[in-house]
Amino acid sequence: MKFTIQREQFVQSVQHVSKAISSRTTIPILTGIKIDASEEGVTLTGSDSDISIECFIPKEDEENEYVEIEEEGSIVLQAKVFADIVKKLPENKIEVTVQDQFATTLKSGSSVFNLNGLDPEEYPRLPQIEEDSVFKLPTDLLKNIIRQTGFAVSTVETRPVLTGVHWKIEDGELICTSTDSHRLAMRKAKVETNTDDLEFSNVIIPGRSLGELSKILDDSEEWIDIIVTENQILFKAENILFFSRLLDGNYPATENMIPTTSKTGLKLDTKVLLQAIERSLLLSRDGKNNVVNLKTMDNGQIEITSVTPEVGKVTEDLQAIELTGEELRISFNGKNLIDALKVVDSSEIHVDFTGAMSPFVLKPVDHDYTLHLFSPVRTY
Amino acid sequence: MKFTIQREQFVQSVQHVSKAISSRTTIPILTGIKIDASEEGVTLTGSDSDISIECFIPKEDEENEYVEIEEEGSIVLQAKVFADIVKKLPENKIEVTVQDQFATTLKSGSSVFNLNGLDPEEYPRLPQIEEDSVFKLPTDLLKNIIRQTGFAVSTVETRPVLTGVHWKIEDGELICTSTDSHRLAMRKAKVETNTDDLEFSNVIIPGRSLGELSKILDDSEEWIDIIVTENQILFKAENILFFSRLLDGNYPATENMIPTTSKTGLKLDTKVLLQAIERSLLLSRDGKNNVVNLKTMDNGQIEITSVTPEVGKVTEDLQAIELTGEELRISFNGKNLIDALKVVDSSEIHVDFTGAMSPFVLKPVDHDYTLHLFSPVRTY
Repeated sequence: MKFTIQREQFVQSVQHVSKAISSRTTIPILTGIKIDASEEGVTLTGSDSDISIECFIPKEDEENEYVEIEEEGSIVLQAKVFADIVKKLPENKIEVTVQDQFATTLKSGSSVFNLNGLDPEEYPRLPQIEEDSVFKLPTDLLKNIIRQTGFAVSTVETRPVLTGVHWKIEDGELICTSTDSHRLAMRKAKVETNTDDLEFSNVIIPGRSLGELSKILDDSEEWIDIIVTENQILFKAENILFFSRLLDGNYPATENMIPTTSKTGLKLDTKVLLQAIERSLLLSRDGKNNVVNLKTMDNGQIEITSVTPEVGKVTEDLQAIELTGEELRISFNGKNLIDALKVVDSSEIHVDFTGAMSPFVLKPVDHDYTLHLFSPVRTY
Repeated sequence: MKFTIQREQFVQSVQHVSKAISSRTTIPILTGIKIDASEEGVTLTGSDSDISIECFIPKEDEENEYVEIEEEGSIVLQAKVFADIVKKLPENKIEVTVQDQFATTLKSGSSVFNLNGLDPEEYPRLPQIEEDSVFKLPTDLLKNIIRQTGFAVSTVETRPVLTGVHWKIEDGELICTSTDSHRLAMRKAKVETNTDDLEFSNVIIPGRSLGELSKILDDSEEWIDIIVTENQILFKAENILFFSRLLDGNYPATENMIPTTSKTGLKLDTKVLLQAIERSLLLSRDGKNNVVNLKTMDNGQIEITSVTPEVGKVTEDLQAIELTGEELRISFNGKNLIDALKVVDSSEIHVDFTGAMSPFVLKPVDHDYTLHLFSPVRTY
């Protein structure tokens, strides 16, 4: 194998595929990045067997020549060392040569790196996926969906399905839900499909996969193709393939958990509420005590308080834009509310309560495609 | 105690004095910041008993009013919580009130924090320092001296004096030296003194103290007064007092270690050498193997190589600006050279060798007030 490649494209693709690579893998070959040079260009692959990422650098596009192939071939190089090297090489062009025994040379200007490569035949094949049922979303919308649901997945493995985000498609609408059983986030979006009757449910994508996917996607309006199979999901962007394993098991039925009535209704400025709750948690030590108390007042105000024994007490008074219904005192995990308020794309929100012991709903005023649900905390 | 203070000044001073506070202190009162309100203004103090920092916020200066004192007094508040609160308070003004039993209230807009304070009488007194012999330096020069010597102190406690920087004054010149016994950094600077005959040596300032001092000083040309006593050093900037304990013991005589002859002389571009050595260490794992080999070549070039068994080999060819004297092959700790090259304020450097087994000297081409010395590494 021998080719010369533009450093900038190489660096970016190496960074992308590195996102899939875990230093804790038990399969030695997966600590490496696979490089394939063909007539069309250079393909890089990284995988931890849950996530696999493939990046393609074409020989050329309309404007630029990126790769000059002298001899086709493959090699696997240690990901960390390789990524560090391509980032630091002195010139814009990098020459990659593989000789006998996988001995690899990277040359750039007066720098020469001789590396011991690994056998590319040992590298696992990526899943073959049939492209019968495809739906698509603009990249920036997909990133927004991930941002607005990914934070609410469970981080403990006691119920593995809750570490993923549940996706279903019904009537041309994608509904994404995540919950750690104390709070829930839901986001809907219209999708385009290549078949009219594309429907599925119980597709559970690991939260970590979505997080890594989001990091390598630009905030563009380019369409991204999505294909779901029995146990894999594939995201296809330009020159990037992102495969993730799906989680096994049945996701809980969350639709019935969401209350449809309201006994106390609040309309609040999103940022004012966020900052007040952030301040009210300043005394909670190492995030151990995140309980915040909310009380409605006479004059359309609400009072938020938080007490940490031995340290002190915080009191925040807020003017509600609207306050309707019954008087209320309720306690909840303030950290969970902060997480939700940070991803709300609306300057004002509605919060609807049905009593001090019942879950309550937070919705943006501007639109109805997102919803957040929170359990109260009992304070005796 | 009761006063109202401008948030911005308060936040900055709290951050400054927090630099002295260690969460690992065994003296409970030192986890706090002491606040003193007097007719003149507000004084904040933080200390870990090695370093003490005092910041003064005057009632007013020519342009602005900063503090409005209603009642004088003192209190000690938990540093971390207090620093977080003042940073996040919503309005520009903060009202601080202390009632009975050290109960303290911080009020800003509609936020109210009730904190349990500590007894200010328990807070240790700062050292009283006689100001007989004072010398001074511009702040930016002091920061530069710290930057160019602080990195070379030892980080292990086997020889405690080597964890500090040695300062001496001779003929109106300050000479600062640090060494971890494998490399040495030296920086000289003219100082102004209030007495003609101010001379001292064996003043050893903990590297950590100098690092924290540098962080709270601006890059200004304002003069900073420095007073050295038996076991303390005091840095006096505008509204800031910085006290540090000195290290006990005798600093090694370093003058005689520096070779005055040269068998092989090199003149090199600082940045070219720095980048070549940085790349040559890319294969060294977790900084365990930092050995770099340097070899002079026929055509005025030098070759830098580094080998990490099982990973590979790096070769860097550099054109020297000048190469004089004998042929040379030498090995050294590349990391130590990188540290020094990063603080050199000169685009070109001289390196003088007196053989493969002898220490070698690195000097900037532009000036003669800094010098770096390195031990070679034996490679069998």
